[in-house]
Amino acid sequence: MKFSLLKTSTECNARAGSVTTDHGTIDTPIFMPVGTQASVKAISPEDLDEIGAQIILNNTYHLYLRPGPGLIRKAGGVQKFSSWNKPILTDSGGYQVFSLSDFNKISEQGFEFRSHLDGSAHLLTPEHVVEIQRDLGSDIMMVLDECVPYPCDYDYARKAHELTVRWAEKSLNAFKKSTSAHDFEQSLFAIVQGSVYTELRQASANALLELDFPGYAIGGLSVGEPKSAMVEMTHVCTEILPKEKPRYLMGVGKPEDIVEAIERGVDMFDCILPTRNGRNGTVFTSHGKVNIKNARYKDDFGPLDADCECYTCTRFTRSYLRHLYNAKELLVLRLLSYHNLYFYLRLVNQARQAILDDRYLAWKKEFYNHYHQDTSIS
Amino acid sequence: MKFSLLKTSTECNARAGSVTTDHGTIDTPIFMPVGTQASVKAISPEDLDEIGAQIILNNTYHLYLRPGPGLIRKAGGVQKFSSWNKPILTDSGGYQVFSLSDFNKISEQGFEFRSHLDGSAHLLTPEHVVEIQRDLGSDIMMVLDECVPYPCDYDYARKAHELTVRWAEKSLNAFKKSTSAHDFEQSLFAIVQGSVYTELRQASANALLELDFPGYAIGGLSVGEPKSAMVEMTHVCTEILPKEKPRYLMGVGKPEDIVEAIERGVDMFDCILPTRNGRNGTVFTSHGKVNIKNARYKDDFGPLDADCECYTCTRFTRSYLRHLYNAKELLVLRLLSYHNLYFYLRLVNQARQAILDDRYLAWKKEFYNHYHQDTSIS
Repeated sequence: MKFSLLKTSTECNARAGSVTTDHGTIDTPIFMPVGTQASVKAISPEDLDEIGAQIILNNTYHLYLRPGPGLIRKAGGVQKFSSWNKPILTDSGGYQVFSLSDFNKISEQGFEFRSHLDGSAHLLTPEHVVEIQRDLGSDIMMVLDECVPYPCDYDYARKAHELTVRWAEKSLNAFKKSTSAHDFEQSLFAIVQGSVYTELRQASANALLELDFPGYAIGGLSVGEPKSAMVEMTHVCTEILPKEKPRYLMGVGKPEDIVEAIERGVDMFDCILPTRNGRNGTVFTSHGKVNIKNARYKDDFGPLDADCECYTCTRFTRSYLRHLYNAKELLVLRLLSYHNLYFYLRLVNQARQAILDDRYLAWKKEFYNHYHQDTSIS
Repeated sequence: MKFSLLKTSTECNARAGSVTTDHGTIDTPIFMPVGTQASVKAISPEDLDEIGAQIILNNTYHLYLRPGPGLIRKAGGVQKFSSWNKPILTDSGGYQVFSLSDFNKISEQGFEFRSHLDGSAHLLTPEHVVEIQRDLGSDIMMVLDECVPYPCDYDYARKAHELTVRWAEKSLNAFKKSTSAHDFEQSLFAIVQGSVYTELRQASANALLELDFPGYAIGGLSVGEPKSAMVEMTHVCTEILPKEKPRYLMGVGKPEDIVEAIERGVDMFDCILPTRNGRNGTVFTSHGKVNIKNARYKDDFGPLDADCECYTCTRFTRSYLRHLYNAKELLVLRLLSYHNLYFYLRLVNQARQAILDDRYLAWKKEFYNHYHQDTSIS
């Protein structure tokens, strides 16, 4: 993996760059659609190409349990398995152990949990997580970390960050001792933790820096903390993280969160919002969010977003999309998810162009002038 | 609407022709994908174009209740409403009144029923059904008929057929008195009933012939009767129906049913099997049916059907499709429906070519040599 920094804003920390992997080059800042189970919900690989997706995220926890890393290794890696021949990033599974599994216990060794599918018992160690991702063949692998909830007291946050650093070292050792199961290179990113405590975030970033990973993620945000804390913690981390390496803000977020984080020097994002909101009938437009179920759209024969050139907006009306949603027609889940992903990819693409033109703050102002924020839906 | 007969087999009653409407020309024999609520389930208009669909069917009953004919009229017709700019046929809704509504009572006047959506009371008369379809703007409209279940005693079948003929006349009068709500031509087809009684089928066909409709459907088959009866009744009807007009066998059927009916001179088909089976994980292949859930496909990295050139077969493996199905991923519903529709469209296309080459019976034999019939799933 190679990261090239093409331009840094003279007004703020926003940067434009590119990440090159054996499955292709990613223009940063980038948004990664989430394909939890090796499929972006309701969206085909061809759709992703049309939308402009350059890298997607898959969930290690899910693929570990089903269909299992052995099968995906046998298929030639998760790219071949899912017929997506561009880069893939896999998370570590730690977050899902907390949020999905029936039972979990954390120890120095790792996570003990029971599968949400069949109740079977599993132990996920930092080394095991590296091994699983070797089988999956993701271009970018993530270390196992302990992501704490919000709010979280200082002492617990400190212990979790320290454990995350020890696990990062174990992960890196396991990574260095292993080789790719496939004929392409894989990279391992570390994850900064520390909740909303500046000194913990600094300690975490500095400790991980010493281990010299090729890229760094900021984890444990967008878990319920105030937006100001998310922005501030992002800033604290990017101030320390090396300029010559990519920075990934995990699980973030709303369009406005992404705009703020790009300003603070973040390069990569993932979030389930565009697909989940799409399936719930909520779409992002250049003027803000639209709930397609609303009765006012019954005979609105205009597009979802007049400024959008995606398949959904150029071909279908709000009236028809509302009908499909009310009639529980499967097609609408695809059409709304497609539009929302297109919106997110266009957003980061426009942000990148603004950075290259060294007018990021002016672009950001234009974005907010049109985009009506709504904090009621997270 | 214009029907052109291009070729009739010298070996059997199979025929190749074309139906021309203001929304385009349909090559017959043709299969019409079913888009119940103005959407072929999980399939986009672009998918339908790729699959080779030339005409689709929409359900009057469903569209009458939701979103309502007024809205679709306002949208410019169901083609514009659903962004499908090729021909659309709408059924009369009679079948759905029986199969879906909460209560129904039939009288000389029409069907009284309560909506399956909200329990509201409705009366569907032959005249009203014409009016609704005028609003919908379908290229081919169907008359209201009484479709009897199987088995059905002779006397009931006779009464139902006679009512259907009286309703056909009322429908035709209403049709002639009305004009299209849109800037294109609409045609009205009659429906032959008579259950499995040869003389009732003959009486029905002959009575409807006198009314001089531009096309004729054979209804009330594929409702549980033995396959031999379906084939025989189809034959009885096509022997009487005029050669210069299109013949449509409603709701049929399995690939082998279509092959038999084409031999007996049927031009048009519709059936929910390819899409419903797709959503249930069953696919049609050139060698017969495949249940993708089967454990034997876990590590089968071949395509669904090695002889198929559709998007699903050229891009995805059985192993991945099985994973998607087991993981309840929405994408698989589209991919399997897509393949099944492609299979059906290819089937009628190949049949048509065989008719044009005057080798229909030889082609039919080749089809059966490969295709393993399974009568366990209807």
